[in-house]
Amino acid sequence: MSLLLSVSQLRGPILSQLRSSTSIFIRKMSSIEQFKQSPHKLLVIPGPIEVSDEVLFANAHPSMSHVSPDFIPVFGDCVRMMRTVVDTAEGQPFLIAGSGTLGWDQVASNLVEPGENALVLHSGYFGDSFADCLETYGANVDQLKAEIGAAVSQEAVADALKKKKYKLLTFTHVDTSTAVLSDAKAIVETVRRVSPETLVALDGVCSVASEEIHMDQWDVDVIIAASQKGLGTPPGLSILVASTRAIKVFNSRKSRPSSYYSSWKKWLPIMKAYESGKPSYFATPPVNLIYAFHVSLSAITKSAPSLAERYELHREASRRIKTAAKDLGLKQVPLDPAFAATGMTALWYPDGLGAGDILPRLAKKGIIAAGGLHVETKDKYFRIGHMGITAVEKTRGDVDTVIKALKETLAEAAAEK
Amino acid sequence: MSLLLSVSQLRGPILSQLRSSTSIFIRKMSSIEQFKQSPHKLLVIPGPIEVSDEVLFANAHPSMSHVSPDFIPVFGDCVRMMRTVVDTAEGQPFLIAGSGTLGWDQVASNLVEPGENALVLHSGYFGDSFADCLETYGANVDQLKAEIGAAVSQEAVADALKKKKYKLLTFTHVDTSTAVLSDAKAIVETVRRVSPETLVALDGVCSVASEEIHMDQWDVDVIIAASQKGLGTPPGLSILVASTRAIKVFNSRKSRPSSYYSSWKKWLPIMKAYESGKPSYFATPPVNLIYAFHVSLSAITKSAPSLAERYELHREASRRIKTAAKDLGLKQVPLDPAFAATGMTALWYPDGLGAGDILPRLAKKGIIAAGGLHVETKDKYFRIGHMGITAVEKTRGDVDTVIKALKETLAEAAAEK
Repeated sequence: MSLLLSVSQLRGPILSQLRSSTSIFIRKMSSIEQFKQSPHKLLVIPGPIEVSDEVLFANAHPSMSHVSPDFIPVFGDCVRMMRTVVDTAEGQPFLIAGSGTLGWDQVASNLVEPGENALVLHSGYFGDSFADCLETYGANVDQLKAEIGAAVSQEAVADALKKKKYKLLTFTHVDTSTAVLSDAKAIVETVRRVSPETLVALDGVCSVASEEIHMDQWDVDVIIAASQKGLGTPPGLSILVASTRAIKVFNSRKSRPSSYYSSWKKWLPIMKAYESGKPSYFATPPVNLIYAFHVSLSAITKSAPSLAERYELHREASRRIKTAAKDLGLKQVPLDPAFAATGMTALWYPDGLGAGDILPRLAKKGIIAAGGLHVETKDKYFRIGHMGITAVEKTRGDVDTVIKALKETLAEAAAEK
Repeated sequence: MSLLLSVSQLRGPILSQLRSSTSIFIRKMSSIEQFKQSPHKLLVIPGPIEVSDEVLFANAHPSMSHVSPDFIPVFGDCVRMMRTVVDTAEGQPFLIAGSGTLGWDQVASNLVEPGENALVLHSGYFGDSFADCLETYGANVDQLKAEIGAAVSQEAVADALKKKKYKLLTFTHVDTSTAVLSDAKAIVETVRRVSPETLVALDGVCSVASEEIHMDQWDVDVIIAASQKGLGTPPGLSILVASTRAIKVFNSRKSRPSSYYSSWKKWLPIMKAYESGKPSYFATPPVNLIYAFHVSLSAITKSAPSLAERYELHREASRRIKTAAKDLGLKQVPLDPAFAATGMTALWYPDGLGAGDILPRLAKKGIIAAGGLHVETKDKYFRIGHMGITAVEKTRGDVDTVIKALKETLAEAAAEK
């Protein structure tokens, strides 16, 4: 038996009933299958980066107690997965509500005591800031400054370490202001050869999960990170991993940690408690952001592509952007390919063109890139980030989109001059 | 003309086409009308609290640049709306990625110089912690401790201020560990009478937007808050409002701020820039959380019910919970109704019953309440939060749900003993 219906009937009550039940279905159910982030311009600044629907949906998790038996293992997993990301067996991760900057406070207030010496390798804007932070907590700071676009040479590092005893050496793995990549492995080798007890802190805010890092193999003491770059999560989480050597130095300090909020005396028991599945409290963690971080870390460390494959995909995206830029006549800020980051590209504006010619045109094409940041030259170059899903999920086509928009922008800008 | 269709046809390709286009509709469109947070147990701990769908959806905002012209006014609005929440015309809000705890660091490192005196009024767990924080940055701290369940008397405050000159006095407006409410207005009056130059810092992490606060009228110098309690947003944002007197004291300090990440020297220009609509950078703000905070602050300060009505709704919810508890024979931790918070209730377990008899039974009924927190008595009482939408949106029925579950729980627990 078949019931006959006219299209007008279909357009009438039945369709509206269908629509209505669909709408109830939409309103009552909340699952990742139904969630898609709002349309928006493609964000290719060097952080915050594009974040997946799954991560954003987790950031909209219903409120949960920070000591709930449902939440504790999620936090514990994040601690464990961070070890995988930086390739360490015994390193101690710290996950604390804050910006990436808070990582400097953690290092400066827990690993250096007032009056001790610290050496900062400067490859851009962030070296000055790290030095400022160290001085705030009483360190005597020397800086080795590379010229713009370069990293400090191993010879200069060795010379400095021979002249003075340093408790700590810091360097910016990728300086977001210049896209200069420092050779982490070589720096630690130099330190261990000349001054083996000096702690080495790698500022990896703009490198972790984009640039290859092997904490144990390279013998790094501290890795500083933040959620909003290679780790593919909204901003608001300071992430740090400390080596057993660093924790030992911390445990033997004579003065109390010189910060309260950043004190590992407060946070170490909390991290150990969460990892062992027990409730503990010092300050309320950013619960929703930890759920989001868990989703991103699971994608990075437990799904396909593997972490090694992700590094290769980042290298491929970087090669493609840098080659296209070169073909368009654009010069990189890093002076040598050996100094150039994989997760971002910094490019001088062509002669006669400036920020006003390039960035607004890119924005009109739906692409958000970043201007310069280095104090001395910030109006002369721009920056493109290619980290996380933009580099890894090829089906998104982000790299093609950026290259196409860049080509068109330069042609238009040149035509109008 | 009408096209005839059979039900089988409807069930077949057309319906599946409808379904498929509906599914595309669901997947492609992302709007608040379609978003509803996942089913979950009712969270009535004294923070984090239940958060509205609108706020959570904003927390899932697509990634945005922290210096984007779309984001800057959102941040600026939050700064302005925070003034409304604490009822100040000229106070300077600070919004910084971090837990509520970071507010103590802001006060201790910006308003006190090493060797200066601070007086902490102690009405629970959080007094000790604030004192610890102040000492970390070099303050000489005295504490006035009230007995458990009470706030410090005005006589004790006046006596202490007469004996010694204090740069700063701090008190916990509502101590989350005891539900004790301090009389903010009376405390400031005592200070202005006896030691008018002493700065007064109100720790309002567990009170702002739940308990009535009039910063200017009461002449408070600092109000510390966090996003996850009365302000109805996920955790991860440290919020502070400083009076012009506090900013003046800060500007005249002789030593540099003793924290880097909390330094107002860094943050003051950033807050002023965002408020005036200009990009500025010190550390990446928690962009998504600021979007979420904007939605919650808009509800609190620009929608119905008004802020005054919201306070009344909090008082009503509090009266109902406290009356029901009394009827059930439960005694409050606060010794006197004058000391009892409006946004939460702390109750001693009845004789012969403990945490294991009450909290798991409540959880089985879908209610997450909190155990004790005060070091000396934490196994003897439990806490119920009734802030934000739980108190304000009566149609949710949260207060009824809690009272019903509490009644059933006590009856079951008594029957099984």
